[in-house]
Amino acid sequence: MEMSWEQSVTYSINTVYLLFSAYLVFVMQLGFAMLCAGSVRAKNAMNIMLTNVVDAVVGSISYYLFGFAFAFGDTSNPFIGTNFFALKDVPNTSFDYSFFLYQWAFAIAVAGITSGSIAERTQFSAYLVFSFFLSGFVYPVVAHWVWSSSGWLSASSTNPLFASGAIDFAGSGVVHMVGAVAGFWGALIEGPRVGRFDAFGKPVPMRGHNATLVVLGTFLLWFGWFGFNPGSFDKILVAYPSTTNQGNWTAIGRTAVTTTLAGSTAGIVTLFGRRLLVGHWDALDVCNGVLGGFVAITSGCAVVEPWAAIVCGFFSAWVLIGLNIVVTKLNFDDPLEATQLHGGCGAWGLIFTGLFAKEEFVIQAYEAGDTSVVRPYGLFMGGGWGLLGCQVIELLVILGWVSVTMGPIFYAQHRLGILRISTEEEIAGLDISSHGGYAYNTHQEENQPRFYADYMRMHDHS
Amino acid sequence: MEMSWEQSVTYSINTVYLLFSAYLVFVMQLGFAMLCAGSVRAKNAMNIMLTNVVDAVVGSISYYLFGFAFAFGDTSNPFIGTNFFALKDVPNTSFDYSFFLYQWAFAIAVAGITSGSIAERTQFSAYLVFSFFLSGFVYPVVAHWVWSSSGWLSASSTNPLFASGAIDFAGSGVVHMVGAVAGFWGALIEGPRVGRFDAFGKPVPMRGHNATLVVLGTFLLWFGWFGFNPGSFDKILVAYPSTTNQGNWTAIGRTAVTTTLAGSTAGIVTLFGRRLLVGHWDALDVCNGVLGGFVAITSGCAVVEPWAAIVCGFFSAWVLIGLNIVVTKLNFDDPLEATQLHGGCGAWGLIFTGLFAKEEFVIQAYEAGDTSVVRPYGLFMGGGWGLLGCQVIELLVILGWVSVTMGPIFYAQHRLGILRISTEEEIAGLDISSHGGYAYNTHQEENQPRFYADYMRMHDHS
Amino acid sequence: MEMSWEQSVTYSINTVYLLFSAYLVFVMQLGFAMLCAGSVRAKNAMNIMLTNVVDAVVGSISYYLFGFAFAFGDTSNPFIGTNFFALKDVPNTSFDYSFFLYQWAFAIAVAGITSGSIAERTQFSAYLVFSFFLSGFVYPVVAHWVWSSSGWLSASSTNPLFASGAIDFAGSGVVHMVGAVAGFWGALIEGPRVGRFDAFGKPVPMRGHNATLVVLGTFLLWFGWFGFNPGSFDKILVAYPSTTNQGNWTAIGRTAVTTTLAGSTAGIVTLFGRRLLVGHWDALDVCNGVLGGFVAITSGCAVVEPWAAIVCGFFSAWVLIGLNIVVTKLNFDDPLEATQLHGGCGAWGLIFTGLFAKEEFVIQAYEAGDTSVVRPYGLFMGGGWGLLGCQVIELLVILGWVSVTMGPIFYAQHRLGILRISTEEEIAGLDISSHGGYAYNTHQEENQPRFYADYMRMHDHS
Repeated sequence: MEMSWEQSVTYSINTVYLLFSAYLVFVMQLGFAMLCAGSVRAKNAMNIMLTNVVDAVVGSISYYLFGFAFAFGDTSNPFIGTNFFALKDVPNTSFDYSFFLYQWAFAIAVAGITSGSIAERTQFSAYLVFSFFLSGFVYPVVAHWVWSSSGWLSASSTNPLFASGAIDFAGSGVVHMVGAVAGFWGALIEGPRVGRFDAFGKPVPMRGHNATLVVLGTFLLWFGWFGFNPGSFDKILVAYPSTTNQGNWTAIGRTAVTTTLAGSTAGIVTLFGRRLLVGHWDALDVCNGVLGGFVAITSGCAVVEPWAAIVCGFFSAWVLIGLNIVVTKLNFDDPLEATQLHGGCGAWGLIFTGLFAKEEFVIQAYEAGDTSVVRPYGLFMGGGWGLLGCQVIELLVILGWVSVTMGPIFYAQHRLGILRISTEEEIAGLDISSHGGYAYNTHQEENQPRFYADYMRMHDHS
Repeated sequence: MEMSWEQSVTYSINTVYLLFSAYLVFVMQLGFAMLCAGSVRAKNAMNIMLTNVVDAVVGSISYYLFGFAFAFGDTSNPFIGTNFFALKDVPNTSFDYSFFLYQWAFAIAVAGITSGSIAERTQFSAYLVFSFFLSGFVYPVVAHWVWSSSGWLSASSTNPLFASGAIDFAGSGVVHMVGAVAGFWGALIEGPRVGRFDAFGKPVPMRGHNATLVVLGTFLLWFGWFGFNPGSFDKILVAYPSTTNQGNWTAIGRTAVTTTLAGSTAGIVTLFGRRLLVGHWDALDVCNGVLGGFVAITSGCAVVEPWAAIVCGFFSAWVLIGLNIVVTKLNFDDPLEATQLHGGCGAWGLIFTGLFAKEEFVIQAYEAGDTSVVRPYGLFMGGGWGLLGCQVIELLVILGWVSVTMGPIFYAQHRLGILRISTEEEIAGLDISSHGGYAYNTHQEENQPRFYADYMRMHDHS
Repeated sequence: MEMSWEQSVTYSINTVYLLFSAYLVFVMQLGFAMLCAGSVRAKNAMNIMLTNVVDAVVGSISYYLFGFAFAFGDTSNPFIGTNFFALKDVPNTSFDYSFFLYQWAFAIAVAGITSGSIAERTQFSAYLVFSFFLSGFVYPVVAHWVWSSSGWLSASSTNPLFASGAIDFAGSGVVHMVGAVAGFWGALIEGPRVGRFDAFGKPVPMRGHNATLVVLGTFLLWFGWFGFNPGSFDKILVAYPSTTNQGNWTAIGRTAVTTTLAGSTAGIVTLFGRRLLVGHWDALDVCNGVLGGFVAITSGCAVVEPWAAIVCGFFSAWVLIGLNIVVTKLNFDDPLEATQLHGGCGAWGLIFTGLFAKEEFVIQAYEAGDTSVVRPYGLFMGGGWGLLGCQVIELLVILGWVSVTMGPIFYAQHRLGILRISTEEEIAGLDISSHGGYAYNTHQEENQPRFYADYMRMHDHS
């Protein structure tokens, strides 16, 4: 049977939309790499960039072999997918290669979040192990629960929990909280970097080595988020039956707007909030504030009004500012603030969606605009407790699932002595001790130690 | 009434086109940030990057609240729009969210131009004030005049000035001259940076701190310009009735080509021109030359032949080279050459369009290819004085409007002593005096002053 | 005759697809610039970035004037195209402006490869000459042979060689080998950089100055490759007649997947392979490994299964590792490994396609899915020797053609003494000797020599 011209047009438009969105999401990997590199000290820049490259290349193979199958395997199992290993039976009537590529770009982002939390003190071989486990198994399972139509918590299930399911449209929980909870356990078990807190527990500032890279990374992440959030509609050629000129194209544009407004609001609030708290205008704080706003709006981006996105961003800034103060007091050290930013703002985003999701937009995003369907929506919008309940459940199960899977891995590595580098290596820096040299070589002649052995000899004063 | 499948397809294709163009224009904000950072001294890098981030986040809120309303408010007022505040009544039959997002990306670019002119010596709080006023009011009003169908100078008006209206397709005047004229007054009123001219008025070179960032910024701006110029068609699915296979898709491709050729020609002319003038091959000059060519072609990109784009780029290079010599002689100091580049080449672009616009292409861009319509076009192409007259008028009213609005703001701040930082702060650099530390921290241990107070103590030789 | 609505939709979708792919390919120019800059010493960073900018601006004009005509001139001449000079008669029924722009982005990439091989020691004026000749003539002729429907080696010819023609879908040979063979001759004739090998022929490591730029460049190239490989389909709205839901959109997604898997596999293999060989985890090796995988899959990306892409990447890693060992032993110095990477992996890619091309996918990519056509395909897939023969022939004729055209140019420049800079200039660095100053200026005050004459005076100890 030959397909109709209408079908060909539909496939073409939707594929163009999804593929270019996937390419944008991929740019976020570069954004993370630059943000992380700029936020650590120069002696560890190569290490953290390598972790970001490795997330991408290892994640490609693991997601191809089984990650995609676990996440989107077309099955009646509500907990884990069980087919499409190594893209067997893809393409099919549900999924084309473009969908795989789009989801691959999400999967490789998760470990990038975690790499920030455990930066500057983790053995590279330990990183390889938990990164592989995190993006190949822990994350895909959560994605299955929330995003696969057979997932037990999915809003697109035929029989969703509380008649609602959790609305985590682009993954405040599925992506950001998962990465952050993993990072939390890693950072907690490893402990702070050498010198991060003095003998009295007072924090000693450890500035990153390059603010330009932080700004570059932030803007690249912003650019990529236009693929992450609006792209999560997957299809753009979907008309809403009860309207005269609206369809997914309208909701997609609105999603780009809510994303922009949430991040911008959070940035402004951080600018002035930190000015009041520390007395100067701090570019790095603003960058993190903007990212916190993006993380928070990621869950509800498609189902809230632009004005609500401003509310979302406003509070996400204070969530981040507050958590940063708290963890510093507790002598918890996350070099990228990833736990606070992706975990705290991600959790806030889930709750926010349960409060502010608008009925009309929920119907657009999850029922293709079929207004004959009745669904719960935001509590503050009059939509009852069903959605908010699911959001809280998502928050709790992510906390639980990632803790029971990743916690033991970090702890076992810790007990085996293969998680953290030695104090000597940490002071020397990971680049010289594990990666064959520093990232920078600004002198015209070669005068840096080329191997860790040389470094140790140069610094041996015994 | 349900919409037809044809309508859905049309909306989908045009939205994909417009949204991804908007994302590219957004990348220009990153391009400006990197270009500016690389072009200033290391001690001010954080400051200028923060201005670029702030342009984006503050501009998001101000453009959402009122900027878009001033610019595109659907009204009979030819001077300023009066509805669509806070996106009320959007989406409607004229504008969807994607159009707002596209225009937002333009609005945040304007202040980025100005930030270059007043770099390395301006109080950050002063920047906040005039940036907000510039992108929230001064720029949207000009956009309304030239781009809104109700604007008095608009080429898409039903009753345009001189039966023509000004053709400033993507904004050589509306965006670039507006930013540059504002910057001109700021730089003039502030005066040159400390040490920029010696006691005899001889210029002392003040090289930027990082040429790699300049090249990075230039290429990112080039990439973004593919959204800026071809994207300004807004819609790609528009067939030209008198052709067999042409439509906006053809004109859009041609616009990308004219943009590329103008920038490239300007780059080559600058390479050899500066080689003759200064004796070496200067990468930074070439970067600025390329950007000058882009600025100049931005007005006429859609309505000129590729060969004419080469003419445009050729002269824009000399405009920039010439103005740079002139302003240096006059002891005018614009660290980014923004006045000369965006103002000079922007003005040349407006005139160029009045001379070289081709009848067929004007009909394509402004009448959807309806060849039954008669319109003025380029003087050298036989199209009479109507268009050129409008172009000159646009040039003059932008000069006038931006001068009478922004000039007093800068002057008032100057008189109140809140515009320029102190000489001590300028020598120390804005980053340490206003932003809590330097952008770079290349030593392994923390050995930089963390606060301006520490810096002053270290440098106190009294 | 007015065109049908179906035609308008088709042109619009395909143009959106092709233009945004072209923009991505353009980003590769930025990627090359950053990769090259980071891989050379700081004193030559400005020089190599300028070569990348010059490739773009000079290539724009030469490709507009004659390069496109040589490559795609619509002619019966199987060796070189002879019309469409300066875009005369474009657009036409075969080519619109968007196709020109897409091919332009390819043309400017070729010289960028070569610039890596001859980095840090070549006179800029010599670069201008051979870059112009390479991208304006040598490359377009090869493109005509392999990609124009009238080319003697083309797989889309009506009467292809061995009933097959060479399948070099996105240019492992046409782009990468051409650039690499040119670079090989340049690097060979110039000889190694001063100090690259000691008196006993032992290599002395010459690390690049900035690993962050290398990672930035690698990710940007990856991003751009999504335009390079999947984009080479040119059109996305092409349905495959014997399927119910597949068309170019399926093959395009699959091409993005094969590209990703090949690069990722090569990166992983390099990570562990180099770990075994040198004892540390080297980020720069991994970056080059990933790029080698991309170069290799570029030829067959559209016609192989995802699992085969993994095979492709696996071997390309060892090709690169092995060649790097060999050339070091032979005291051949290519600062970017461009000869080994683009030449070696490019050649492997051509052979790989001859072995693993799948019949169904060859029919999709070259016969629009018309399964009634019979064509040779990969030897290992049972497709006979026809395709492999053409692949070997392409490999050999590229070697021959580029050698006989570029070799004499380099040799003549060498004999005239205008190819390589003097030893003094090389030690001082190209930036200070030819480009008016260093790329970096990290001190707050101006304390670097501003001209080569100053530099020489400062270093004159006679």
